[in-house]
Amino acid sequence: MVIEIVFVYLAALSTTFTMAETGSSNGIIDLLEDLLRILKEEKLFDARCNQSVINFRHPQDLKNIIPLTLNDDGASSEEIDIIIRQIIKYSVKTFSPNFHNQLYAGADEYGIVGSCLTDVFNSSQYTYEVGPVFTLIEHEVLEKCLKLVGYPSIPEADGILCPGGSISNMYAMVMARYKKLPEIKRMGCSGFPPLACFSSEESHYSIMKGVHWLGIGTEHVYKIKSDQLGKMLPNDLKRAINEAKANGELPFFVNATCGTTVLGAFDPLPEIAKICEEESLWMHVDACLGGTLLLSEKYRERLRGIELSNSVAWNPHKMLGVPLQCSIFLVKGKKALHKTNCAGATYLFQQDKFYDVSWDTGDKSIQCGRKVDAMKFWLMWKARGTSGLRKSVDVAMSAAEYFLDRIKMLDGYRLVLPSYECSNICFWYIPPSMRNQEETDDWWQKLYKVTTTIKERMVLDGTLMISYMPLIHKNLGNFFRMVVTCQPPPTHRKGA
Amino acid sequence: MVIEIVFVYLAALSTTFTMAETGSSNGIIDLLEDLLRILKEEKLFDARCNQSVINFRHPQDLKNIIPLTLNDDGASSEEIDIIIRQIIKYSVKTFSPNFHNQLYAGADEYGIVGSCLTDVFNSSQYTYEVGPVFTLIEHEVLEKCLKLVGYPSIPEADGILCPGGSISNMYAMVMARYKKLPEIKRMGCSGFPPLACFSSEESHYSIMKGVHWLGIGTEHVYKIKSDQLGKMLPNDLKRAINEAKANGELPFFVNATCGTTVLGAFDPLPEIAKICEEESLWMHVDACLGGTLLLSEKYRERLRGIELSNSVAWNPHKMLGVPLQCSIFLVKGKKALHKTNCAGATYLFQQDKFYDVSWDTGDKSIQCGRKVDAMKFWLMWKARGTSGLRKSVDVAMSAAEYFLDRIKMLDGYRLVLPSYECSNICFWYIPPSMRNQEETDDWWQKLYKVTTTIKERMVLDGTLMISYMPLIHKNLGNFFRMVVTCQPPPTHRKGA
Repeated sequence: MVIEIVFVYLAALSTTFTMAETGSSNGIIDLLEDLLRILKEEKLFDARCNQSVINFRHPQDLKNIIPLTLNDDGASSEEIDIIIRQIIKYSVKTFSPNFHNQLYAGADEYGIVGSCLTDVFNSSQYTYEVGPVFTLIEHEVLEKCLKLVGYPSIPEADGILCPGGSISNMYAMVMARYKKLPEIKRMGCSGFPPLACFSSEESHYSIMKGVHWLGIGTEHVYKIKSDQLGKMLPNDLKRAINEAKANGELPFFVNATCGTTVLGAFDPLPEIAKICEEESLWMHVDACLGGTLLLSEKYRERLRGIELSNSVAWNPHKMLGVPLQCSIFLVKGKKALHKTNCAGATYLFQQDKFYDVSWDTGDKSIQCGRKVDAMKFWLMWKARGTSGLRKSVDVAMSAAEYFLDRIKMLDGYRLVLPSYECSNICFWYIPPSMRNQEETDDWWQKLYKVTTTIKERMVLDGTLMISYMPLIHKNLGNFFRMVVTCQPPPTHRKGA
Repeated sequence: MVIEIVFVYLAALSTTFTMAETGSSNGIIDLLEDLLRILKEEKLFDARCNQSVINFRHPQDLKNIIPLTLNDDGASSEEIDIIIRQIIKYSVKTFSPNFHNQLYAGADEYGIVGSCLTDVFNSSQYTYEVGPVFTLIEHEVLEKCLKLVGYPSIPEADGILCPGGSISNMYAMVMARYKKLPEIKRMGCSGFPPLACFSSEESHYSIMKGVHWLGIGTEHVYKIKSDQLGKMLPNDLKRAINEAKANGELPFFVNATCGTTVLGAFDPLPEIAKICEEESLWMHVDACLGGTLLLSEKYRERLRGIELSNSVAWNPHKMLGVPLQCSIFLVKGKKALHKTNCAGATYLFQQDKFYDVSWDTGDKSIQCGRKVDAMKFWLMWKARGTSGLRKSVDVAMSAAEYFLDRIKMLDGYRLVLPSYECSNICFWYIPPSMRNQEETDDWWQKLYKVTTTIKERMVLDGTLMISYMPLIHKNLGNFFRMVVTCQPPPTHRKGA
């Protein structure tokens, strides 16, 4: 009977276009080989240091250079060849040693291979049936990450790969709310007292975006003061919790950060955990940036107490160099993800399948189709080993420390903080004409403008990409933020 | 001065590991070439018809076959080679002509190349500065999609690429809520009357998951009845809106579907639009599946009225074959996405940059880092042309119609619906021993079990992957759902 069904479909296909033309096609491989040839000819990865990190063109100019318009007719392969070379020329070389603009940079080589393999199979990550290998791979990655954080194994804890840290942080808020008031899933927030969140003034803006979406409201986020280094002040957290209660709000969620976006600060987790326990609050750790230090024996102390939290977000696509997107959400509690998020769609998660359906991950997720993000991280981890990952973290951190030491000694550089715990280092450059002068308000305003001018010149020259930003709540104008990310070690090809 | 900064960092690097070892490495290209060689040797794309669509192993057995454990030591390149071959062997071949299990199948060749290029550059899609080409490419894709739907151009309308249709649908609900009650962004839902949503009983479960996350609550979704073919009944929508008002709820959002998940039904958009206008409700169209028919002159009539809606979700990663994930959210209203979602993070979206910052897309998004999903779709569209995409849609639809015609005539097949509007076709197979019998309740129960048994056998044999499901609200037990997706046309290499 099976054969009949196959036959009907094949017959359908054969009437519409000839299988002979496509069935034996190695088109995908041919096209990928073409791409590799172009990448080689354009010397994209050769002499990384000598290459401009960007060939900047303003939007209208770039539109005039690359034929971006999509037309009714397809482009010829020569046209595609030329366009790919143009895309290469005008795209930012994140893998350049002169790219320090974001919290990520170039991707790991094995990560890219894993991603390519994922694309070839074009699987979604909701049932074991359609992605058996990828399901087991995600499971292994999650188990290893749970262990790294100090959480119990599946199913006493669980995790899921998410499209970015903002959504991981939203998972945490939803889980916390479901634990406090499970009826909200059914009834919504209307009719319940306002829920209050607590997060430091240095924390990521995704908390503000998240509370908007989740119907909690931005005015119910208490921004907790931080100390000189950007660490949350536990006493201010206590004060804010009491203030929220006095305002008739129901405190439910504290977001602690390991590796803040600008200063790279680590909040004091044990103290925060103690407060959360006393007040029965969910403790989430946004370790999207700093979580990578868990891999290092030397630096993991900076996340001491992370195991006391209820949930953790970690983005290996940031400092560690897994290709975008790779964001991991981990949570304590038996089957907690499933209980919170399940909708029980019978068309997809049939319970009468012939295999153990507890391997189907789809009902743990807010997504339906879910891109396989675990494969690239898994292949990179498999090839490098935990020891290789550890080494690349230690190398990045010692490069950051060396940068810090050097810049302290150089004339004309001024650090924003006296010390840094992560691999971002914030500083000003004071041009010779401004040195040894009285540092009045005007002087500072001028320095902030100098910062944007230097930035513009570096981008237009293509020499260096490094971001600048102000820190308004600390009353600081524009400064540079250097970011050191893990560079993949040379690929040891033991067999070669 | 620029040079000094570069120098400091390079010096830092040189002390920690030798640039000579890594700087001139073509590691990425070597590894990708290895992957292509393996894909060729494993004959992955050769003779697609003769290959098993799956080599099924139960989870525990598969764990024993592939060395999935991540260890402290890295694997050798021989080990990686073997593991990749195992992953290939045991992964589902979605590009097989015998894969019809989901609403997506194998990915387009140019789409895969575009994805690979995206990975090599590892860019995020939040500022023009870090992704200039990708920003313009997303813009072009969005403009073309807006035109396809019949919406105005940017900035009178806008759009964003999202990690999947569920999140696109959440965008729609958030935009609708912000339009109705903008204060909720600041104040949360607490203190406001419950908001009511309307969506057909055939619609996707992401609406239920979305209202949970957004604090609206699942009991405030009115599931509108559908007709025999699965189309929303406008009169029942009117009834439900009145019921919600009588219950003290505030109606704000109607979700219409073009191409329902199971039956492929298209809701009557003009009638729904009229009701939405009368009642001042946001009309969203979940065209994640059916939106692909907009490309066809012949079939786009099925989405007549889509231009009357406020927002649309379309997943070109489904029927059209763009690699996962590629989901497009489109919305009317000048700068509506930005107004609704902005948080104004000063560290990322500096307003004093030297270029036109209106090209920075990050503050339109609920995500911070956002994977570049436009490149793969753009390259595919560029290479195929709109005419090529149109042809592949027409071919898929005529293959589905041919399948439908054949199955009507074959003994032992029973259609669930008399006709279908999309390329999913639902049916039962009645084995010879059950034919020409009285169709009692027991007979039907047996048929439903036969369906799961056939499915199990096909998966274990690796002959065909096609999903089965019940449709509980229509009182139907397990049936098969055949899905025909667009097969990429043979790659015409005009230059070759």
